[in-house]
Amino acid sequence: MRWSQSFIPTLRDDPADAEATSHKLMVRAGLVRQLGAGIYSYLPLGLRALKKAEAVVREEMEEIGAQEFLLPALHPAELWKESGRWDAIDATMFRLVDRKQAELCLGMTHEEIFTSVARDGIRSYRDLPQIWYQVQTKFRDEARPKSGVLRGRQFIMKDSYSFDVDAAGLDKAFDAHAAAYARIFERCGVFAVPVEASSGAMGGSESTEFMALSDAGEDWIVSCAACGYSANLEKAQSVPTPADSPSTGAVPEKFATPGIRSIEALTTFEGGAAAADQLKTLVYSVAGELVLFCLRGDHELNEVKVMEVTGRSDVHPAHAEEIKQALGALPGSLGAVGVEGQPVYLDFALRGRQGMTTGANEDDFHLRHVDVERDLAHGEWADLRNVEVEDRCISCGEAIEVRKAIEVGHIFKLGLRYSESMGARVLNAEGKEIPITMGSYGIGVDRIVAAAIEENHDENGIIWPVEIAPFQVVVSPLKVKDAEQLAKAEQIYEELSEAGFDALLDDRDERPGVKFKDADLIGIPFRIVPGPRALAKGNVEFVERATGEMQEIPFASIVEELEKRA
Amino acid sequence: MRWSQSFIPTLRDDPADAEATSHKLMVRAGLVRQLGAGIYSYLPLGLRALKKAEAVVREEMEEIGAQEFLLPALHPAELWKESGRWDAIDATMFRLVDRKQAELCLGMTHEEIFTSVARDGIRSYRDLPQIWYQVQTKFRDEARPKSGVLRGRQFIMKDSYSFDVDAAGLDKAFDAHAAAYARIFERCGVFAVPVEASSGAMGGSESTEFMALSDAGEDWIVSCAACGYSANLEKAQSVPTPADSPSTGAVPEKFATPGIRSIEALTTFEGGAAAADQLKTLVYSVAGELVLFCLRGDHELNEVKVMEVTGRSDVHPAHAEEIKQALGALPGSLGAVGVEGQPVYLDFALRGRQGMTTGANEDDFHLRHVDVERDLAHGEWADLRNVEVEDRCISCGEAIEVRKAIEVGHIFKLGLRYSESMGARVLNAEGKEIPITMGSYGIGVDRIVAAAIEENHDENGIIWPVEIAPFQVVVSPLKVKDAEQLAKAEQIYEELSEAGFDALLDDRDERPGVKFKDADLIGIPFRIVPGPRALAKGNVEFVERATGEMQEIPFASIVEELEKRA
Repeated sequence: MRWSQSFIPTLRDDPADAEATSHKLMVRAGLVRQLGAGIYSYLPLGLRALKKAEAVVREEMEEIGAQEFLLPALHPAELWKESGRWDAIDATMFRLVDRKQAELCLGMTHEEIFTSVARDGIRSYRDLPQIWYQVQTKFRDEARPKSGVLRGRQFIMKDSYSFDVDAAGLDKAFDAHAAAYARIFERCGVFAVPVEASSGAMGGSESTEFMALSDAGEDWIVSCAACGYSANLEKAQSVPTPADSPSTGAVPEKFATPGIRSIEALTTFEGGAAAADQLKTLVYSVAGELVLFCLRGDHELNEVKVMEVTGRSDVHPAHAEEIKQALGALPGSLGAVGVEGQPVYLDFALRGRQGMTTGANEDDFHLRHVDVERDLAHGEWADLRNVEVEDRCISCGEAIEVRKAIEVGHIFKLGLRYSESMGARVLNAEGKEIPITMGSYGIGVDRIVAAAIEENHDENGIIWPVEIAPFQVVVSPLKVKDAEQLAKAEQIYEELSEAGFDALLDDRDERPGVKFKDADLIGIPFRIVPGPRALAKGNVEFVERATGEMQEIPFASIVEELEKRA
Repeated sequence: MRWSQSFIPTLRDDPADAEATSHKLMVRAGLVRQLGAGIYSYLPLGLRALKKAEAVVREEMEEIGAQEFLLPALHPAELWKESGRWDAIDATMFRLVDRKQAELCLGMTHEEIFTSVARDGIRSYRDLPQIWYQVQTKFRDEARPKSGVLRGRQFIMKDSYSFDVDAAGLDKAFDAHAAAYARIFERCGVFAVPVEASSGAMGGSESTEFMALSDAGEDWIVSCAACGYSANLEKAQSVPTPADSPSTGAVPEKFATPGIRSIEALTTFEGGAAAADQLKTLVYSVAGELVLFCLRGDHELNEVKVMEVTGRSDVHPAHAEEIKQALGALPGSLGAVGVEGQPVYLDFALRGRQGMTTGANEDDFHLRHVDVERDLAHGEWADLRNVEVEDRCISCGEAIEVRKAIEVGHIFKLGLRYSESMGARVLNAEGKEIPITMGSYGIGVDRIVAAAIEENHDENGIIWPVEIAPFQVVVSPLKVKDAEQLAKAEQIYEELSEAGFDALLDDRDERPGVKFKDADLIGIPFRIVPGPRALAKGNVEFVERATGEMQEIPFASIVEELEKRA
């Protein structure tokens, strides 16, 4: 392509609203433009990178025998009602009605739709296994769209679905996906680590996320250098910092705590207790019902674990009034001792704890001498808390690290979650009808592009991994008004194009400084400059973007040199 | 691809709800499945055809220098309000609100969005011309989705937009698109004719539709074999069948017509008049205001012309009560003589007509002796009526034909319609700010596929044009349990794949009859059968789907033979 005829609107300054490096560079290099909150337009250069990432994804999917589909973005509500997710999913799902007032949603994922296709089209175990995929636009009404295309409300996703007769088949499809994903990330210049993750609204028994370490990420991952344990903070477990309060054998005793409404306030109150010796009681509305969650006073509740434990995604902190009505006190004086009307969950870190202090469900009163196993025997044990940086590894007891990361992929063993609720069955070898065993597998294509930029850039701009570079090489004549230089540049450009390289000819009538700066900003891996001095020797200048290294190579060996490197 | 591992759910019977041949065949051949009204899933075979059509479109667009973008499907309402189309477009636009109650719509076309990108990114005439395109999913809430993907509510469209400094530049871009479209249709096996069309909700001065003649179409085109005139019925003009009622010189005279409420009833009423001598007066609500349209009694009002004449798309027949309130009578006794409160439009076919009969705006009364130019002088002349089959060509006076067709493309000279309303300006060579001159160009990719099937099929199934065939060739061993036959088939399949052909290996353990029937149904252009008798001579059977012609060719010349034909 000729730069002079192309729309590559580079900008000198960072966009005012951008924090993430990839967001800044994608706008400055003219890859994308924002249309609305979390809604981006891909301009030609950005789309070229996106399509190359898509091509890598497709190649690796075909390699594991996946077949490409294209399913609609508009979904009738009925299918989501069959699976039970129409009600279970919150405002993240865009919903609308059509001119006949029929309910629709915009696809945020396609388990229901692919399951319905399988239900209608697959009859026998002989038709299995199948892996079906698509590269398609998804819609999610994110509460806080940010970081450019990293958390958009509309984005390109490769989602695939495996269909097997049994769990062994699913394991194979799952492992094949994990391996394919690793190859995709490697080819696209993204260093992504697999971590244990929560299955969340997707359901199923097990899931693995692929996480690209980056400060631009919005996820946190917990990892242990010693044993290799790694998990999303949403899912991670750990050994808490030790805590012990001696048992007195006494029964719970109510005492006045006027004005004391927080864990912290009670730590300095006379007759109070250290945070680790207090019970924190949080009341949530889960599918409209109140549920109590008890943790150690110095621990934080993890809402994803709340969803996992309750099997619902429509959870939020209960309102003060409904709490007061149900328990008789406002937040700040709450406890679970003696509570019978509501389910109570106890965090594992409370196991065996005695002599603890908790709210008395009477404003301005607390209870001391609480023995969790004795006084909260009506509670159910669960993993409820966030890992803390000071905790130790759940697997080996060594120190852990907690770091930010971008979720670039997520794969799920769904098992029978959808085939059972939606009736997708096959006849097995014995002629018996059984539900299909399913997996689902997602990779964010926009995120691959952005994560690649997060990982491959310098102060001058993007440094594209060759495989997803919009152009592999830019030919930059110093002076387009010099007929000979331009002719040589054109000749190189033609030769490279013929040899199958994506070449960009910078035929703009600009100073070399401007051209080189732009080429660095948009990050083309290799630059060829047919300068007069080099040309006089039958050479051209060959510059590598990543290293800045420049060398002269013979005019005749340009294609060969690129083939070696690209 | 190996058929045994592929998802190609062919059906023996036509789907119950399908009328169009392409709809039936696309379902039967396992190309698509319906998800909801006007919403289709592409299965692997269908997607392969769709992607090949997309590839042809992309090639021809690149050929005219167009650059590919990818714009969002979610549009903030603001941009559509800037252009004025948020209110002007009816229920065909899917609208929704997000979690913050902000108004959004799903893109049915992208004039506003591309104009906003140009407004922000193009500053000078030196940046022009530009042609920008995308291949993207559009959403339209059709009142009557039907015929499979021919009229879906979500579909793939290539839309492009040209940006020029002046009308001469636009003409060039428009002509380049017309030529590119002609090549696209030809390559995809679709015979499409360009016709004059209404610009409708798009605006602008001129538009051309590309129409594939087919009974499955929902458009009608008017054409003249003698002079080549051709236009969409929505837009077409014609010379009406002659009509004349002698002038009596008399002034309008009211007479009683008890119970007479239709043109037809008045033709047989004593003292009535022939249909062609009556005035038909229709009252519409246009943007909420009543407007009267007068035609000859035997002519039909064309709603698209109503939209064009009034410049609004929110038009519909007025309700009887509001008509009664405004004019004093119910439909059946209406006329425009003496009407002052509402705009009146007169169809061109009424020019010079005298001695006509019309409603008196009093129930059960009519007026006779109406002289249109005298008594309806307050009306505005316009082209309002549908062409009738008995009419003559507007251009040469010869007989015309009216035929059904599928609209596969539509190109518009938008002029300044969007650049002025949305403020997309550039500095011209004289340093003066001028609005950008724009064009917009659409092609339906799903429709190309369906139209190709409408045009290329027989009683056994689809006959794919090679360029968009899901596979170019199928290799069909007669007996996969015969190790030698299967080995030969595998060898041919491998060789063809290596030579770059999309080959399908029918390795299913089925009878040859079943295999050939399926291969005919899914329409693969060439079939190679390594039968034992042919193999014994070092040959294979080579069958062409279109003709059914079968010949034996040497095993060694398969690739060569296909290269010659494909």
